[in-house]
Amino acid sequence: MGDLCVRSVLVTGANRGIGLGFVQQLLGMPSPPQWVFAGCQDPKGQRAQVSGHSPPHLASAEVTDPASIQAAAASVGERLKGSGLNLLINNAAVLKVNSLDTETLKDMSEVYATNTIAPLLLSQAFLPLLKKAAQGNPGSGLSCSKAAIVNMSSTAGSIQDLYLWQYGQALSYRCSKAALNMLTRCQSMGYREHGILCVALHPGWVRTDMGGTLEDQVREFLSVGGMLKVLSSLSEKDTGTFLNWEGKVMAW
Amino acid sequence: MGDLCVRSVLVTGANRGIGLGFVQQLLGMPSPPQWVFAGCQDPKGQRAQVSGHSPPHLASAEVTDPASIQAAAASVGERLKGSGLNLLINNAAVLKVNSLDTETLKDMSEVYATNTIAPLLLSQAFLPLLKKAAQGNPGSGLSCSKAAIVNMSSTAGSIQDLYLWQYGQALSYRCSKAALNMLTRCQSMGYREHGILCVALHPGWVRTDMGGTLEDQVREFLSVGGMLKVLSSLSEKDTGTFLNWEGKVMAW
Repeated sequence: MGDLCVRSVLVTGANRGIGLGFVQQLLGMPSPPQWVFAGCQDPKGQRAQVSGHSPPHLASAEVTDPASIQAAAASVGERLKGSGLNLLINNAAVLKVNSLDTETLKDMSEVYATNTIAPLLLSQAFLPLLKKAAQGNPGSGLSCSKAAIVNMSSTAGSIQDLYLWQYGQALSYRCSKAALNMLTRCQSMGYREHGILCVALHPGWVRTDMGGTLEDQVREFLSVGGMLKVLSSLSEKDTGTFLNWEGKVMAW
Repeated sequence: MGDLCVRSVLVTGANRGIGLGFVQQLLGMPSPPQWVFAGCQDPKGQRAQVSGHSPPHLASAEVTDPASIQAAAASVGERLKGSGLNLLINNAAVLKVNSLDTETLKDMSEVYATNTIAPLLLSQAFLPLLKKAAQGNPGSGLSCSKAAIVNMSSTAGSIQDLYLWQYGQALSYRCSKAALNMLTRCQSMGYREHGILCVALHPGWVRTDMGGTLEDQVREFLSVGGMLKVLSSLSEKDTGTFLNWEGKVMAW
């Protein structure tokens, strides 16, 4: 397992929780990326302020708005000055805790738009930059250091496991994450020829809002660290898989 | 394996293809249901005309419109005069053949609304009638003759198999069917206590529009016949599964 060695990363939903954790730990690596683009809905908000070895360049991407996504991709492309994007981490997501009885058309649609459609649209928009990164590294096989799409999924998206059903039905969330896993599989098939690895990750249980206990924060730190380690270890055979933060294969 | 013995059935998307096949074969059974409600978007259209031992009562249900669904449920409840609905077959679906590159927000949203959200909303609306059917048959375990929700899925919704990827990426369809499989699992967990069996079915490859060859029509006839046989055989242990038209368990 080598170190993750990337020149540029974009993380969506980077103003808090796991997204913020990715930005912080990427910037804290011995050889940090030159560019960490932290996409968040409110880039001027207090929680979007990130410190590190080199300040990240914030791109405002309303992840469900095609025009905003295109603008973000253009802006990132401009800053990269001809080089590609190594790593797209589709982390932005919403959770609505309805039950089977109280679930609505509106919530089902909104959750699907953010958790499933947005990762598709972002991947489409950043595809030219991901291809460019892969082309700049033609000798090696698939890897996250070359070019990759990382979709933050959840074990709640495992149809087989139906994880913690008794604690929260969250139907819209479960359906969106199962669909995200399907998207990841499809992307792995479609983008393999372009040298882009695609993977779905389950972060483990994480309390992602501020104000969690110290234990929550430690758990989150370990989760993000674990996922970065997993990403550094991925190769050709891992594209299209669904892994947890320790690298264990999850059931679809 | 007993015969399917139901008093009332509702089939959505019943103006053609598999939905129409269900209505026709249900009405052609030795002991046909007393009530076959054929939901279709254009109940006055030529293709909505169905013949059989007893003419079905058409309920117009725009499957993605909550108000239409509620109206259809009220109308069906009125016609059933106090008895319940044994079988809800969520068959209405759309397919858009975009690729990974050409898929859009609009098509992703529309396909999800029809293929995933509508089965949820229909099940919610008809739940009181399904519960009533189950309560009217309290002695036995779960079965389709008692009360069941049948979600017409597809092997294209199998994340594991990624069936026929090279022939059509149809991303929106694949994602919607994976999510429908998740919905089916969730419904099986939530509705078991109400005596309602839930299952996802893959009909086999079927050409569902009119004008197919004789071979297509024969294939479709066999598919629907096979599924009715499968439905008649289901019990407690089968709720929450994903089966093909021959009763074989499909990978999630």
